[in-house]
Amino acid sequence: MSIEETSYTPLHRYVLEIAYDGTNYSGWQIQPHRLAVQEVLQKILTYMYMDQPIHLIGCSRTDAGVHALGFVASFLAPERPDIAPDKLLRAVNRQLPGDIKVMSIKEVPFEFHSRYDALGKAYTYVLNLRDSSPFSERYSWRPLRRLDPELLNAAAQRLVGTHDFSSFVVERSKIDDAVRTIYRIEQQIFGDYCTLTFVGNGFLYKMIRCLMGTIEAAGAGKLSPDAVTRILESKNRTNAPETAPPQGLFLMKVFYDEESLKNFKLEKLPFH
Amino acid sequence: MSIEETSYTPLHRYVLEIAYDGTNYSGWQIQPHRLAVQEVLQKILTYMYMDQPIHLIGCSRTDAGVHALGFVASFLAPERPDIAPDKLLRAVNRQLPGDIKVMSIKEVPFEFHSRYDALGKAYTYVLNLRDSSPFSERYSWRPLRRLDPELLNAAAQRLVGTHDFSSFVVERSKIDDAVRTIYRIEQQIFGDYCTLTFVGNGFLYKMIRCLMGTIEAAGAGKLSPDAVTRILESKNRTNAPETAPPQGLFLMKVFYDEESLKNFKLEKLPFH
Repeated sequence: MSIEETSYTPLHRYVLEIAYDGTNYSGWQIQPHRLAVQEVLQKILTYMYMDQPIHLIGCSRTDAGVHALGFVASFLAPERPDIAPDKLLRAVNRQLPGDIKVMSIKEVPFEFHSRYDALGKAYTYVLNLRDSSPFSERYSWRPLRRLDPELLNAAAQRLVGTHDFSSFVVERSKIDDAVRTIYRIEQQIFGDYCTLTFVGNGFLYKMIRCLMGTIEAAGAGKLSPDAVTRILESKNRTNAPETAPPQGLFLMKVFYDEESLKNFKLEKLPFH
Repeated sequence: MSIEETSYTPLHRYVLEIAYDGTNYSGWQIQPHRLAVQEVLQKILTYMYMDQPIHLIGCSRTDAGVHALGFVASFLAPERPDIAPDKLLRAVNRQLPGDIKVMSIKEVPFEFHSRYDALGKAYTYVLNLRDSSPFSERYSWRPLRRLDPELLNAAAQRLVGTHDFSSFVVERSKIDDAVRTIYRIEQQIFGDYCTLTFVGNGFLYKMIRCLMGTIEAAGAGKLSPDAVTRILESKNRTNAPETAPPQGLFLMKVFYDEESLKNFKLEKLPFH
């Protein structure tokens, strides 16, 4: 008896690439009493699969207020010949609120894991240097003090490499090993905005926002590049300036192959 | 005795160019029980002039939810040698919320009137044709039906010229003479967005949103260009489709000279 003749329904794994405006959400991960992106999507998928509960496995948590362009999540579902992935994509997007979009849905091998199989991630942090637009408040950080892009970049480059990032993590992740590798940090200028794109093998809870707090202080001339190195080497959170706000941060891309990790390049402002 | 020797304080007129995200406001004009852009600005200016009440005269009302890049307003104030216009500009912007920016402040002749002296205005309406970004919901209209840019443009061109626009006004402005001149409507495509920029000598209350409701129906293939002309000629609001939502509309520029009116050209998406 071939498998087609049994009543057994084989399970398939689908992977979603998701873009969202994080302003109105508690982040990706479901939490009590607050609305998470995961919850919104799972409800719609569960509905599409006629109330068979669908569980999404995300590539990471993102904090409340942080945005995403290339968040990756996967789910296991019975194959429904009446819902091809491209049809599902259109149907899901029609149900979603305007601040969440599924960019693609495709089938992947059963054993794929969106978090454990990731080789690295790219995040972009957007600084607004001149405060000239009323439309970017939700998508950038406008520090009150004047920043020098060269000083910002000099500080950022001190953070590249394999380090114990204990000075740049908040309590919640102190239990983890804080050694991570930042492969590169690329600065770009787009009009009045300065972006810093971090490509690394992984980032701790709020790590990029902690790093940006220090980079901002350096950009304002309050910390020398050497001082940044000393803060890094001290492995002590209390030595670093305050955490930068979430609305400037975008998860741009999750990498599952070396080639795309090497070639990633920010083409334009993430919210444009 | 020369004027400098009297105790009389001469009044000066200043003109502001203002950009704002209209999402959280009831529009420009002060209204009971709702927060207007005018109110926010007047409070700050009154504070700057040490509680001498400052009254702003705007170039037009804008509806709730409509955005502006080049709104013009003027006020009369005693000259304070300690607040030069460029200093006032920085001080006002530091007090303003992030969704309102004053782009410039300059002194103009005493008799200048921001509304009566305007020769025309340019408004841009942004349609989102493909719904691919989670960051543009507040700044564009994504109609549910598929739109053909050529059909949109063919309909729009039927509205250019001097017409009685009674078919495209809401009750509130019916008392006015509804004859206005639209000098040109220019369509542009920016990625997934289609913009229509209206340059005219003046626009009635909600007129562009009413026009866009009809243009959208034509873009969806529901109205022929001839049908659009018939609606215009009927001078009857009940013949036109529904009014388009406010969030796609931007007041781009107010013209006080023929040259700038002739040369205005949209360079990029208004919210980018």
